[in-house]
Parts: sequence; structure tokens; C-alpha cells
Amino acid sequence: MTRLIIDTDPGIDDAMALFAALASPELDVAGLTTVFGNVTVEVATRNALALLDIAGRADIPVARGATAPLAMDYLGAIPHIHGEDGLGDGGDLAEPSRPALDVSAAEFLCREAPGATILAIGPLTNLALALRLRPDLDTLVEQVVVMGGNALGPGNATPAAEANMWNDPEAADVVFGARWPVTMVGLDVTHQVLLPGDRVDAVTSGDTPTARLLARAIPLYRAFLTKASGQDGIYLHDPSAVAYLLAPGLFRTKRWPVRVETQGISRGKTWPNLGGTDDPAPPAWQGRPLVNVCVEVDAPGVLDLITARLP
Amino acid sequence: MTRLIIDTDPGIDDAMALFAALASPELDVAGLTTVFGNVTVEVATRNALALLDIAGRADIPVARGATAPLAMDYLGAIPHIHGEDGLGDGGDLAEPSRPALDVSAAEFLCREAPGATILAIGPLTNLALALRLRPDLDTLVEQVVVMGGNALGPGNATPAAEANMWNDPEAADVVFGARWPVTMVGLDVTHQVLLPGDRVDAVTSGDTPTARLLARAIPLYRAFLTKASGQDGIYLHDPSAVAYLLAPGLFRTKRWPVRVETQGISRGKTWPNLGGTDDPAPPAWQGRPLVNVCVEVDAPGVLDLITARLP
Ligand SMILES: [Ca+2]
Ligand SMILES: [Ca+2]
Repeated sequence: MTRLIIDTDPGIDDAMALFAALASPELDVAGLTTVFGNVTVEVATRNALALLDIAGRADIPVARGATAPLAMDYLGAIPHIHGEDGLGDGGDLAEPSRPALDVSAAEFLCREAPGATILAIGPLTNLALALRLRPDLDTLVEQVVVMGGNALGPGNATPAAEANMWNDPEAADVVFGARWPVTMVGLDVTHQVLLPGDRVDAVTSGDTPTARLLARAIPLYRAFLTKASGQDGIYLHDPSAVAYLLAPGLFRTKRWPVRVETQGISRGKTWPNLGGTDDPAPPAWQGRPLVNVCVEVDAPGVLDLITARLP
Repeated sequence: MTRLIIDTDPGIDDAMALFAALASPELDVAGLTTVFGNVTVEVATRNALALLDIAGRADIPVARGATAPLAMDYLGAIPHIHGEDGLGDGGDLAEPSRPALDVSAAEFLCREAPGATILAIGPLTNLALALRLRPDLDTLVEQVVVMGGNALGPGNATPAAEANMWNDPEAADVVFGARWPVTMVGLDVTHQVLLPGDRVDAVTSGDTPTARLLARAIPLYRAFLTKASGQDGIYLHDPSAVAYLLAPGLFRTKRWPVRVETQGISRGKTWPNLGGTDDPAPPAWQGRPLVNVCVEVDAPGVLDLITARLP
């Protein structure tokens, strides 16, 4: 069983990813760390605690993380996608039954992540801060699976950048440059994992607390994505990273050194060097570790796997 | 018949593009302008004059252009691809029969490009300088067809940038932002136009002055590309832009605003905004003209068309 810490900014697809992970016997969710991103870290922390209550897992600790990126101000929430409350604005949310831990997310990661896998489905600030606090952490963590980035295709927050990278490019460049094994589950694959409307209805029609939460959360997200993509359905960005943990064989990966642009109009773009880590031409990639980049996905397989874990 | 000015840094594929254009009755090549790039502008100018002599077209004027990019030093020649002499180092080249004009490339473009089409198959410095000299030039030129850039795929000079853009990103951003109709024939299509080895042999086996020049030029280029791509053959980068002029129906295009990154490790990357010119989110693209970007190509059609023009 994989001991797992989930770093998250819930977020509607974060909620789906969390519920799918909690329903997976292969995964032992040992803690949640929260970060700004889709919402402020205050809202993200409230939501993480509330989602665990709804899932009946108030035993899992939550550590509140970064308020802002490493090197700029927080760009702000995106209520047109995730709602003012981060969970689709579909009615009142019960107050969490308990507070977050007294330790920060970065400290929690330093203490609890050795021997564990980190599933990072928000901006990568907490992971970079943890590496600054404990520089050998990247030799102790089992692996890091990141939802974020775009290796070969366009971005979604800007023409160049995917939203989690856009929210903290400096932190992402630290995480992709560290010694832990990193897998990048980016838009190259998640933009292929579209749950069509009729299957969304099936997910939200259940008579369980988690299904009822998704039924109040998903409609706003679905309306936004349907308008943006012209297809009725929702991208399973964060749940795709859970699917990678459960069934990596559903993905085809390539091993490339990856840098994250921090400058100009390309800020937040993840750049693989397809020439590899020894390619002398662009020095910025030389000596960087190889990142396991998802480039193809069995999308029907991921949809079946995730929906089976959302009862 | 299209009145055509070719801006070029010959360059082995430039020589192929030039010979194909000269052999095309649809095109009236009214002048060549030269630019640093594959080689210094001195070598580019010598080669342009020599290639016209070889083609029996010493009537076509040549204007020498920029020595260096708008905003940096010249990055230097690439003799491992095009040879020290820019034409494959395959033996002595006859000295040109005449000198270049007394006017600069930018001045020549200001005077001769109104009503004409510009085929730009090197760094875009001369075109940007011409716009600075004559700010209404972009309303007078018929169209500009650029070989360069990469809209959706990776670069070739760096992980981010195609070589002509890498050699002068500031100039490219000026050209893609001007009012003339611009078509971008970039790596998205030219990396599909690979002339296989046996067809290269056919092109270089003729008993004409132009075929003999290609027979001395192409082997170095072929050896480099075969090693880089693992396939025996040569990419017809610059000739593909000639093919677009002759048969635009061989290409599928999309109309997007395009910015060229000038900063960071993404310097030289051409970024389309797939959201269009009115997309409010990324202000850098707002109000920019739409560029006609080649996204698909009938590669066999281009190969047949170009080889038929290389007797
Ligand atoms: Ca998230
Ligand atoms: Ca050229």
C-alpha cells in the first residue's frame, strides 16, 4: 500500500481526486497539505477539512501551506471556474469539525514525506519550501506525482502556461530540478481525459455524502468547461494524477530534463529538452534530472478507473 | 505572375528554395536581399550572387542586408550544418561575376517591395529594419511568407525556438505584429517535409549547373540531418515556403495572433494565442493581427512539387 500525502488547492477536480484516492485500497492517505491556487489557502484549508469530514475521514491530518508563491504575489482565485467557495457555490458547506494542524505544510512534508509518495495537484510552492527547509528531502521521498505543466501542447492559463505552473513557476522549476523521481501528468494527457456529460450525471446522482458534494460542486465547473471546449463534459485534471498512481500502465511516458520558464510571456511554460540531459546546445537543461513526462494516455481506461472510485 | 523578393541567408536549403523559385514561371524574382544567419552576411551575399550566376540569372539584383540582429550580437554561423562556405564545403565556388547593389537590403525592400511578395527564409532583421525606415511599408506589400517559427511543436535551435526566430526574436515579433498579411511556414509543417535519400540522389544527379551545385552542397546537410533525425533524408525547410507560394492548397492554416518570446530560456519561441486576438486573458496578444499559420501539410505533394522544379 502506498503511503500518500496529497498537496492540494481544492478546487472541484481536487475534490474528485481526493475522493477517488480515499476510495482506493491501494493508497494510504496519510495527510493533506494545502496551498493557494484555485482559491486562497484559507479557503483551500477549510475545503480540505470539510471534504475529509464528508468522506468520513476526519482522522487524516491537514497542514495549511503557503499563502503566496515563492517570488511574486498570489495571482488570485478563479471563482468563474471553481466558485467563490472553491467547490462550485452549490449551497452551504458545513463548517469543518476540527482545525488544521499547528505545523505548516512544508514542515509536515519534511516530517511525514520520507518514505511516502507526494501527489501534488496544486501550485508547487509547499514542495519547494520543504526542500529549502530540508535539503535532503528529495532523497527520502518515494516519488512525486505532479498534475501540471504542458510539455508538447499549449497552456490553459496563458497560451504558454498551465495553471499550476503559472501560479508558481519558480517553485515548479525547483521541484523538477530536485533528485526525487518526478512524474508530470500535464495537459498533454489530461486534456484527453474528458468525462462526458452523461457520465458526469452518473457520478453526481449517487446517494452518498461524497456524491452529494460532487453534485453541488461540479455544475459550475461543467458549465465553464463546456463553454470553453465546446463539448459537454469535464476534464479530470487532478484525478488523472490519481489514476497514474493506481495504474501507471494507462500512461505512456518519456524521460526528459524539464525546465520551467520564469520570464517573459512564456512564464510558467514547462520545457522538456527532447535532446536529453547531455545535449550541449542549451545549457539551461544540462545536468538536470530526467522527469517522467506523461505523453499519451488510455483515456477510456482512466475514465473507467476514476468513475469506479467515485461511488 | 507574382513579383517576388527573396530575403535569404544561403544556406543549403536556401539554395534549393532559390533554384525552385527561379524555375517557377508563376514567380518573377525581382531581387534578393541577404542577411546573417546560417552564415555571415558577407558569405550570404557572396553565395546569393554566386547562386544567381549558376542559375544564369545575373540580371537579378542582390542587396546586402543586416550584419547582426536588432538587439544582440550575431550568434554566429553553423558550419556543422551548412559548411564553412554556407554551401556544403563541396569544393571551390566561382567568384561572383558582379557585386551587390549599393543600397542596403532594408532600403531595397522599401523601394521594391510595394506591390510585391516577400519570401523571408532567414532571420527577419531586414524586414523589421525596412518597417522602421518606411512605417507604411506593411500596407503596401502584397504578402510576406516566412519560413520560421514553431507554433505547436518544439524548436530546433533550442528546445523552445526555431533557428530563424532564435537568430532575431525582436525582429520576428515586429514582423508578426505588422499590418501586412503574413504566413508562417514553420517547423510544424517543414519537419514533415523530409526528402528521402533516394530522391535526394535524383535531385543531385542531373547534368545542369544548378544540379551540380546541389550535388556539392547537399551531402554535408544530409549527413547532419540523417544523424540528427535518424532518417536518411533532408528537411526542405526553405523550399516548403516556396511551395506555399506556388500551391497554398497543399497546406492547412489557422489564423492566430502570434507573439515571439524575447526573454528567458524560451527566447525565440513563436507563441500563437489559440484563444484569438480578442482573448482578454493574456494582454500580450491583444490587438495583434492574425497570422496565417501553417499547421498541416500534404508532404508528398510538396516533395513532388519542389523536386519537379529542381532540374
Ligand atoms: Ca488542483
Ligand atoms: Ca534560410
